[in-house]
Amino acid sequence: MNIEDDLMFPEMEKSKLSKRKEKIFEIIFEADTFYGKLFDVVLLILILLSVALVMLESVASINAQYHQVLIIFEWIITVFFTIEYMLRIYCVRKPLGYIFSFYGIVDLLSIVPTFLGIIYPATKYLSSIRILRLLRIFRIFRLTKFMRSGNLILIALRRSRSEIVVFLSFVTLIVVVIGSLIYVIEGGHPESPMKSIPTSIYWAVVTVTTVGFGDITPVTGMGRFLASILMLIGYGVILVPTIIATETLRGTRLREPGKNTQVCRHCYDDNHMDGSLFCKSCGYSLHREGDTSGDMTQK
Amino acid sequence: MNIEDDLMFPEMEKSKLSKRKEKIFEIIFEADTFYGKLFDVVLLILILLSVALVMLESVASINAQYHQVLIIFEWIITVFFTIEYMLRIYCVRKPLGYIFSFYGIVDLLSIVPTFLGIIYPATKYLSSIRILRLLRIFRIFRLTKFMRSGNLILIALRRSRSEIVVFLSFVTLIVVVIGSLIYVIEGGHPESPMKSIPTSIYWAVVTVTTVGFGDITPVTGMGRFLASILMLIGYGVILVPTIIATETLRGTRLREPGKNTQVCRHCYDDNHMDGSLFCKSCGYSLHREGDTSGDMTQK
Amino acid sequence: MNIEDDLMFPEMEKSKLSKRKEKIFEIIFEADTFYGKLFDVVLLILILLSVALVMLESVASINAQYHQVLIIFEWIITVFFTIEYMLRIYCVRKPLGYIFSFYGIVDLLSIVPTFLGIIYPATKYLSSIRILRLLRIFRIFRLTKFMRSGNLILIALRRSRSEIVVFLSFVTLIVVVIGSLIYVIEGGHPESPMKSIPTSIYWAVVTVTTVGFGDITPVTGMGRFLASILMLIGYGVILVPTIIATETLRGTRLREPGKNTQVCRHCYDDNHMDGSLFCKSCGYSLHREGDTSGDMTQK
Amino acid sequence: MNIEDDLMFPEMEKSKLSKRKEKIFEIIFEADTFYGKLFDVVLLILILLSVALVMLESVASINAQYHQVLIIFEWIITVFFTIEYMLRIYCVRKPLGYIFSFYGIVDLLSIVPTFLGIIYPATKYLSSIRILRLLRIFRIFRLTKFMRSGNLILIALRRSRSEIVVFLSFVTLIVVVIGSLIYVIEGGHPESPMKSIPTSIYWAVVTVTTVGFGDITPVTGMGRFLASILMLIGYGVILVPTIIATETLRGTRLREPGKNTQVCRHCYDDNHMDGSLFCKSCGYSLHREGDTSGDMTQK
Repeated sequence: MNIEDDLMFPEMEKSKLSKRKEKIFEIIFEADTFYGKLFDVVLLILILLSVALVMLESVASINAQYHQVLIIFEWIITVFFTIEYMLRIYCVRKPLGYIFSFYGIVDLLSIVPTFLGIIYPATKYLSSIRILRLLRIFRIFRLTKFMRSGNLILIALRRSRSEIVVFLSFVTLIVVVIGSLIYVIEGGHPESPMKSIPTSIYWAVVTVTTVGFGDITPVTGMGRFLASILMLIGYGVILVPTIIATETLRGTRLREPGKNTQVCRHCYDDNHMDGSLFCKSCGYSLHREGDTSGDMTQK
Repeated sequence: MNIEDDLMFPEMEKSKLSKRKEKIFEIIFEADTFYGKLFDVVLLILILLSVALVMLESVASINAQYHQVLIIFEWIITVFFTIEYMLRIYCVRKPLGYIFSFYGIVDLLSIVPTFLGIIYPATKYLSSIRILRLLRIFRIFRLTKFMRSGNLILIALRRSRSEIVVFLSFVTLIVVVIGSLIYVIEGGHPESPMKSIPTSIYWAVVTVTTVGFGDITPVTGMGRFLASILMLIGYGVILVPTIIATETLRGTRLREPGKNTQVCRHCYDDNHMDGSLFCKSCGYSLHREGDTSGDMTQK
Repeated sequence: MNIEDDLMFPEMEKSKLSKRKEKIFEIIFEADTFYGKLFDVVLLILILLSVALVMLESVASINAQYHQVLIIFEWIITVFFTIEYMLRIYCVRKPLGYIFSFYGIVDLLSIVPTFLGIIYPATKYLSSIRILRLLRIFRIFRLTKFMRSGNLILIALRRSRSEIVVFLSFVTLIVVVIGSLIYVIEGGHPESPMKSIPTSIYWAVVTVTTVGFGDITPVTGMGRFLASILMLIGYGVILVPTIIATETLRGTRLREPGKNTQVCRHCYDDNHMDGSLFCKSCGYSLHREGDTSGDMTQK
Repeated sequence: MNIEDDLMFPEMEKSKLSKRKEKIFEIIFEADTFYGKLFDVVLLILILLSVALVMLESVASINAQYHQVLIIFEWIITVFFTIEYMLRIYCVRKPLGYIFSFYGIVDLLSIVPTFLGIIYPATKYLSSIRILRLLRIFRIFRLTKFMRSGNLILIALRRSRSEIVVFLSFVTLIVVVIGSLIYVIEGGHPESPMKSIPTSIYWAVVTVTTVGFGDITPVTGMGRFLASILMLIGYGVILVPTIIATETLRGTRLREPGKNTQVCRHCYDDNHMDGSLFCKSCGYSLHREGDTSGDMTQK
């Protein structure tokens, strides 16, 4: 988004590019003019249509019957997307900036699979990655409210990057250690599906995330005991907010009846910690004038 | 509810309708009079009974034995509901207002399936949608406490509509992209149950929501690796409150890394809030002796 | 707990009961004396032992080999518990108060299954309900810290009883409606395991709670689509705290840069909502004395 | 970590050990010098490599082909780790302090399984516990940010130890009681997989944690009903933060039912905090004209 803004504004200000380039830019990148809006709506429909086509093509019974039609439509849309991608490169001021931006990469990945599909048929289904192009519609239709929500989530995630790294490290360690342990316990058992450590680790991921497919399950008593511990860890981690919420509730309860509605009589600062004897802002005693409940400084 | 209130009050004020209409209205819509209460209690019992009947009818062994009885009771209740529905339309001031209100639609949907069942037998089981009529009892029995809780949840949901849209968009994108990817990876494998992209996307929904039925599971190493990532995403999203809670905890403990490691040089209390200028325990200034980072009191 | 306290204190105060009764009371109900503590420790061990015995007895291979030993031990412990139960009734002042208290019922349920097992063998396994007697040890060993945590959770649950009722009502309605819908969709399919509405509702519970056993799963496209919606509802409900947390984060962010550190210059109330123009406590304008950022009242 | 710091600092201060010991210490325990860093990077690579080797060895097809190579590499790394372990003991000032520290135990457990594998082949897979050695890299690369996050989580867990104990006790009781109940209900059924109470309890853990493998599932109506209750308990516990969050939201919106539906009679602002005496928007008293519920200002 930022990239596109960077590309857009200098263009309008300096306007050194040919009129045609500018016009194409307005239609393809912006949505202020009638043709710009029309283009975006057509694009939106084509994206949805092409993803639907790819899905239908993957269903054997449908593909058997409508193979020709699906292939033709897919190629029409892919050609359209290819032209659009080239026009985007052509009309922006800094083509490389666009090409290596998030949307530039998504736009490229939306057309490559179909062409690759000529050589490796399976890869063409990857073109349903086109659905990521829909992210643009948030910007196109000025859905700022949703973007703000999205941005807030991104901000929250970015601010807690280190928590996420710690969490992933923790899960990785747990999963490798318990996956190995269960392999040692279960591996020898003839009925056990834990045929190798990678399989056991996959099972441990399935278990600790509480997904629990059940295609691989422990069969021995010891294995089930270890599995129970792993499940409780996975379940317990989900409960951390519960625990903190309870802690907070306790904080609220214990504070309520007690003391910490202290207000400094000198500077009116009313935000003190429990057990504070002096105002943290002006150094004035918090226990003057006949306070009976917590007075330890006066005689 | 609102609709019904709208219908109710003008009625009582203006009272232009015939006495009979008014009386029916009082009995059917209100619960202040004896007959009104009686009607609601009978209705409540009939709703529960009819849902139980529909359930029992669907159990092959019970249906084989008691088919006649179940059918008779079902029709009696349906006829009663039909009459009640007609009376409701008859006695309200704005019939269309009632018909297109939430309860009006539910009331209609409660009787249609049984009639439709004459033509398409399977549809009659839809009449267990009657259970939604129970929502009315919250109003009837003035369970305002529960209604308030329910309303609060509705308010919370309405206030965070944009978050929900963003969340559903996120899940849709993830599920389509990873569903397609796993189809490309697993689709060719003879043992894999991922026979089409829609099936893979269904599997992705089952996995990301941590439900994990296990009827469809990846069988290749690469597929399992991708599945692990999807599971961690699904599990990670549940953990967002944990992460934010931890963040909050950090906020409380160590708001800025540099600043609030203040230790009182007089009493060695090291637990101060940000911006404290004086020790809360002994009143000694926290910014003596050449503290360079936050010194505002000394010159 | 409360019941026992009620029974204990008047006893000691009035002391009208015979010495023997008092002594038994002290040993059985209290843990202050040496014999009282010894009794509780023995009881604790016997409870754990007896639960282990019941479990082992249910394992066919172990029962086949050690049937005699297990039966003998079980009866010894049951007889001990029976005598203990009788002594408890004997020595408390208000036997009925004890009998109908939570612990009284648990104590009775701990011995009944073994006796019932003479007539209906299966019921004897119910005696593992004895494990609930362990709840007493929190009191016995004065684990007040844990009891406080437990009480806080109970308080939180009691305070949010109406939310729990609303939540259970919501789940019940969802599960009945979607269970019926999927039965109508899937019921006719020859491979579908949804053989009746109760089975479909059970499946809906398994799905909405994200447990997902996978013994019953939809097989048609429509059924899977409906299942996906149900899963997203179940997953979405878990995410409500996430949504609220994000909302809170937004609240914090939007408030930070803005205005709401307003302090009334007249009464020093510093807790105002955004956009307040007058102090809510004394009615004094919040925008006197050259406030530049939000001043709309001064010219 | 603390242990290592304790071992490190006195060493440098007092410097009574031989130069060589000091040099080894610097290389192995610290990462300030070039060789120290090199050693840590080599160690990091070897740990990852050795864990990968153990995993590959457990895969039958890979092991069949590369058995020789894998064994040789594994022994080389194990010998290296053994020498490193001995050097660590040799160069620290208090060997016992290191040996019984967390890292000391992990270092030992990293080499023992390979040697034990000569006698009991299966145990050698336990050497993937080596992955725990990676925890050291947080310290080595001064990833203080991540360490702080990790520490905060540890602090949160330590502070809520009693909640965790209460939670685990609660889960244990629920799981034993419901596991026994379902065994009594299902145990006799010929198709039921609940063959013993330990199996039923394992099933109850799988269910209450919402993992839901589905290898063991109830088959009777009563069993499924009990299972539904257990699932709702498990799901409900996850929802406790939701409930508390909703409670909090209510607190904000409607603290006391009667009181804060205040509407200013002058400007119709209806959004006031509890205890407000004057309208925050226009400064008009909120308690004029015979308000009976909260009037404290008028006589």
